[in-house]
Amino acid sequence: MVLSDSIRDGDLVCLWDGENSFYILLQPGSTFTTHKGIIRHDDIRGRRWGERVRTHKGSEYLLMKPSLYEIVMYAIQRKTQIVYPKDSGLITLKLGLRPGMKVLEAGVGSGALTLVMANTVAPTGMIYAYERDRRFLALADENLRMAGLRQFVTLLEADILEGIEEDNFDAAFIDMREPWETLPILKSRLKATSPVGFILPTTNQVSNLLHALYDEGFLRIEVEEIIHRPYKPVPDRLRPVDRMSAHTGYLIFARTPAP
Amino acid sequence: MVLSDSIRDGDLVCLWDGENSFYILLQPGSTFTTHKGIIRHDDIRGRRWGERVRTHKGSEYLLMKPSLYEIVMYAIQRKTQIVYPKDSGLITLKLGLRPGMKVLEAGVGSGALTLVMANTVAPTGMIYAYERDRRFLALADENLRMAGLRQFVTLLEADILEGIEEDNFDAAFIDMREPWETLPILKSRLKATSPVGFILPTTNQVSNLLHALYDEGFLRIEVEEIIHRPYKPVPDRLRPVDRMSAHTGYLIFARTPAP
Amino acid sequence: MVLSDSIRDGDLVCLWDGENSFYILLQPGSTFTTHKGIIRHDDIRGRRWGERVRTHKGSEYLLMKPSLYEIVMYAIQRKTQIVYPKDSGLITLKLGLRPGMKVLEAGVGSGALTLVMANTVAPTGMIYAYERDRRFLALADENLRMAGLRQFVTLLEADILEGIEEDNFDAAFIDMREPWETLPILKSRLKATSPVGFILPTTNQVSNLLHALYDEGFLRIEVEEIIHRPYKPVPDRLRPVDRMSAHTGYLIFARTPAP
Amino acid sequence: MVLSDSIRDGDLVCLWDGENSFYILLQPGSTFTTHKGIIRHDDIRGRRWGERVRTHKGSEYLLMKPSLYEIVMYAIQRKTQIVYPKDSGLITLKLGLRPGMKVLEAGVGSGALTLVMANTVAPTGMIYAYERDRRFLALADENLRMAGLRQFVTLLEADILEGIEEDNFDAAFIDMREPWETLPILKSRLKATSPVGFILPTTNQVSNLLHALYDEGFLRIEVEEIIHRPYKPVPDRLRPVDRMSAHTGYLIFARTPAP
Repeated sequence: MVLSDSIRDGDLVCLWDGENSFYILLQPGSTFTTHKGIIRHDDIRGRRWGERVRTHKGSEYLLMKPSLYEIVMYAIQRKTQIVYPKDSGLITLKLGLRPGMKVLEAGVGSGALTLVMANTVAPTGMIYAYERDRRFLALADENLRMAGLRQFVTLLEADILEGIEEDNFDAAFIDMREPWETLPILKSRLKATSPVGFILPTTNQVSNLLHALYDEGFLRIEVEEIIHRPYKPVPDRLRPVDRMSAHTGYLIFARTPAP
Repeated sequence: MVLSDSIRDGDLVCLWDGENSFYILLQPGSTFTTHKGIIRHDDIRGRRWGERVRTHKGSEYLLMKPSLYEIVMYAIQRKTQIVYPKDSGLITLKLGLRPGMKVLEAGVGSGALTLVMANTVAPTGMIYAYERDRRFLALADENLRMAGLRQFVTLLEADILEGIEEDNFDAAFIDMREPWETLPILKSRLKATSPVGFILPTTNQVSNLLHALYDEGFLRIEVEEIIHRPYKPVPDRLRPVDRMSAHTGYLIFARTPAP
Repeated sequence: MVLSDSIRDGDLVCLWDGENSFYILLQPGSTFTTHKGIIRHDDIRGRRWGERVRTHKGSEYLLMKPSLYEIVMYAIQRKTQIVYPKDSGLITLKLGLRPGMKVLEAGVGSGALTLVMANTVAPTGMIYAYERDRRFLALADENLRMAGLRQFVTLLEADILEGIEEDNFDAAFIDMREPWETLPILKSRLKATSPVGFILPTTNQVSNLLHALYDEGFLRIEVEEIIHRPYKPVPDRLRPVDRMSAHTGYLIFARTPAP
Repeated sequence: MVLSDSIRDGDLVCLWDGENSFYILLQPGSTFTTHKGIIRHDDIRGRRWGERVRTHKGSEYLLMKPSLYEIVMYAIQRKTQIVYPKDSGLITLKLGLRPGMKVLEAGVGSGALTLVMANTVAPTGMIYAYERDRRFLALADENLRMAGLRQFVTLLEADILEGIEEDNFDAAFIDMREPWETLPILKSRLKATSPVGFILPTTNQVSNLLHALYDEGFLRIEVEEIIHRPYKPVPDRLRPVDRMSAHTGYLIFARTPAP
């Protein structure tokens, strides 16, 4: 075992009691309170990941560095349906995201996908994230700060259908109800033959989008879905869990047209 | 539409004829040959992504920048079972990979997962990739170069069971037949409570690994699988394809023990 | 539309209020009571399937004949994990059940599979259903009566491991925790090369059973699972439901050995 | 082990060489020929299920009674997409089929579902199976004879859209391209609130059918799909197979309207 790094103000910390996890953003003077007692943030600062802290009542919590998966699934605040890691992991690969890329995102919602894409294009790239709803934008802002990825995202309160200033994007992802309306913008603002992606909950929307993609000359059109099946991790009684997610959304990918 | 970047020597280029894709690494003096005719690499250099080139027989190909998904699925050479993007996208998130991280990988194979992890920790991080079989190592080396990610990977011809020099890893992924043997090394070489991941094809191996993970004090043990279901992208006859992959492997995740 | 049959005492009746379903076994003098009011069974007798009845408060219920699917899923009483229709439908086909066959079942539980098998071998066949637990046997008895299939099942309070009297079975299904113990009995009591089936929740049990099946000379051994995915039946927003069953059990099929 | 029944002319017999299966309909004077040699049907007649026969070259085959699953999957001749057992098993339960029922089927195709439904309503019920295409009807006729279920099916060369003579059906299943056109007939020819089922390959067809079902007043409308995942039956290396069916069709169920 090697020494872990020290925990500092601004770090997102997972406190784990052996069963449940709690996520806090370390801040001077704050306290973490559960029914098992109180822990002062100031008593966490300077500890190393993997160390234990105790509440004033003596209950123990392990300090762990949250993975991006945990952040998306458990730590961020949500007011919208989010893009789940089972999907966002594949999305970054299908969009061909690389450090340094300039990416358009429309329909930020709680910022769950924004986080994941920002992490991939960082530290030299940038996500231009458009969202019409100011409340969602504020939420995404907070979630990105918590994840330590705020500086790789330009948050814009705007409807991309009303026109955008930026161009020369390497890729785009659209999470909107009627994404077919964005196709002319994607054609004019992305580099030719750039990857674009969409997520849609219903088959009817997928059919509509496919029609529009063909009509607008998009290339290499694909539709797929990802099913995530968790297992009970019991070595002598290995089996899937009882219930699982049946559906998040259909993923559609294409390339913007050639000149 | 905006001007794309120019294509340079060393770039991996996808040539698409509207149906099939071909992948070439652009090199001075080389030629690309199919039954539709010949294209000289020198005639591609300097063109922009999204432009078209013609064979000496007049057949047209579109020049596209391959996504990481395409590189893994279609461009790399394989001599082993690879980790597929449906799995590797999730793996990077479960391992919490971020730019700058130092990651241990054992069982590199063709380097399909190495590529994806390198892309996430780049440009400031490093994957230390161990592989006992020299032929696989040579293959991974070539595939990483092709993907432009070679500088973010330290390839090591070694069996990690015989001991390794590096330590202080932020995360690890093990793709070996008997991964339970690596647990003591993971415990001693990773930072405390770091994420570790494994992929295993059979349920028996999963049971064995789970036993070992509990015995060795690993935390937050999870098992899951990802099913990828492609659809025929026909707007008026939307439906899944006829046949799909039934299984690649079970994914197991955990955290190294606390001190 | 044609006239339906009349409802008689002893019929299982589904009362549907347009949203929820209630199942009653029609009996002289009984009453059906919900928060919407009371309906006397005597007011249902003689009505036809598809007619409506009203509670004393004026709420309307439609009288429908329950399908076997509904009976298994909603009408029977359960004290055990049941075999679901997605599995039992396939089981009858894999076991090759036909009218007139003589079938061994061990581990009757609530009788959910017994119902389905009895329906297939009826009216000339017979299910010999063994169950050690008297409470389950009483439950299965009641459920079979409710479904109108009691006369096609011989319920036996016995552990088949302690020996059984019957033989010359055409097929068998075993739903027990350690089904490998039953293989010698299956070999001696079934016709040669008869189909046998098993359901098991964990992969470890499947491995154990497979070992035993090979050791005992069983033929054509198969393992499979059935995943049932419901959709929201909304024509303009067609999509799977949010959550679904992730697992009921693995199905194992084989043939008893040749002489 | 008990003595099996003797094999007679007209029986469908599975010959199994330990790896491959062959299906023959036993007939006086016929021969079964493979590259391993010849077996005369007359040498099989009178043998018992589970016995072995030899070709003139000495290769051995085991005589097994085919299950309905095998008949549908391997023995019948197909000129159409068939309804697979994973679906037909559930269909019989959702339609509530019982011995003695009178069932309407439209779109018989190769008769794969007809077989399964006939087996459930036998010996006192009847499937009225409509098919416009004479070639398919001839094929279904042959397949039903082979399966020994011909007497429980009335095959009718007709398009039900042009009107049918029979009525008073207990249930119906429609396997046609535009099944919404059949709804008025289902309403007029089935008993009120009877179960009806449909299978459709595309989501667009499902949406169309759902619209029509609601418009025509059908009740309790449901959509689902069944995924069948086979495993490699190797006890120490248990895992799913590599490739599986991704889709056969969506199943839609409803009840005909009340008066």
